[in-house]
Amino acid sequence: MECLSDVGFSGATVGVVAKRAGVSRGAAQHHFRTREDLLTAALLHMSENRLAELRRRAADLPDGAARTGAVVEMLIDAYTGPEFSAALQLWAAAANDPRLRSQVIPLEEHVGREAHRAAVDLLGADETAPGVREAVQATLDLARGLGLASLLTDDEPRRRRVVGQWTRMLEETLR
Amino acid sequence: MECLSDVGFSGATVGVVAKRAGVSRGAAQHHFRTREDLLTAALLHMSENRLAELRRRAADLPDGAARTGAVVEMLIDAYTGPEFSAALQLWAAAANDPRLRSQVIPLEEHVGREAHRAAVDLLGADETAPGVREAVQATLDLARGLGLASLLTDDEPRRRRVVGQWTRMLEETLR
Repeated sequence: MECLSDVGFSGATVGVVAKRAGVSRGAAQHHFRTREDLLTAALLHMSENRLAELRRRAADLPDGAARTGAVVEMLIDAYTGPEFSAALQLWAAAANDPRLRSQVIPLEEHVGREAHRAAVDLLGADETAPGVREAVQATLDLARGLGLASLLTDDEPRRRRVVGQWTRMLEETLR
Repeated sequence: MECLSDVGFSGATVGVVAKRAGVSRGAAQHHFRTREDLLTAALLHMSENRLAELRRRAADLPDGAARTGAVVEMLIDAYTGPEFSAALQLWAAAANDPRLRSQVIPLEEHVGREAHRAAVDLLGADETAPGVREAVQATLDLARGLGLASLLTDDEPRRRRVVGQWTRMLEETLR
């Protein structure tokens, strides 16, 4: 993921990744037959770690209205920073590479479902109430958009204000 | 922009763009000294056209509550499709190319300000009311996030539901 973030998809070859990981090119290829296999496995691994970390940290969250804000911040944070930048390189490359695209689509569908389930659980959201499911999805879409806005410049002060307002709007829908 | 969308930044050389545009490489280079100049000028041109089109279409919009939904849909549509995909290729390349980044950042700041102003005008939003400014910004961030979600697969049915819910929440903040 560091290689993707630093040099993009075109630069992140199996050889370059193996060198940074301190293993031989042959060893890397023994586990991952193609570059696409290696990079999508790395993205899945990173996403699953992120989701597991979110669920671990949930134990320390406050209850009540403060919880919504804390969860929204955690979700937004998960989509900013170098890991998002790495994922973006893979998405951008997949947009005009049919072979990579066919591997990234099922991965993104899987991760998207897991992220949605985690968000619902962490927020304690009741998806049978009108608008709740869509509002939770909007939170994840907003997170992706804020991740994109912070890709090139440090967008944090603005992001905090937007997240604060969204939290108030989401809180009203949830309760 | 078509070249960026189809072959990414690494493939969208001045020669490739000139060929598709039906002009000589020399003619293209006469107007745009570098590839970075050419591609950022193309992105600015596309963004300004999109914003001008939004403002033109605003004349036909309904008043009242229906207006909010119509404007949100127009804004979201502006961030999906091949033009967004082209912009994304340029953002992804700028993330690890300092020279390109230094040209894309001021461009994005300019376009971001113009898009925000257009959104405020079209929505008839009163930015002095608490939360309104941030809710309008969140709408543009959501649009970017939904654009990203529709990059690899046709996400329209889900997007419509999210946009519908977003509209209801935004409407409440605006009025």
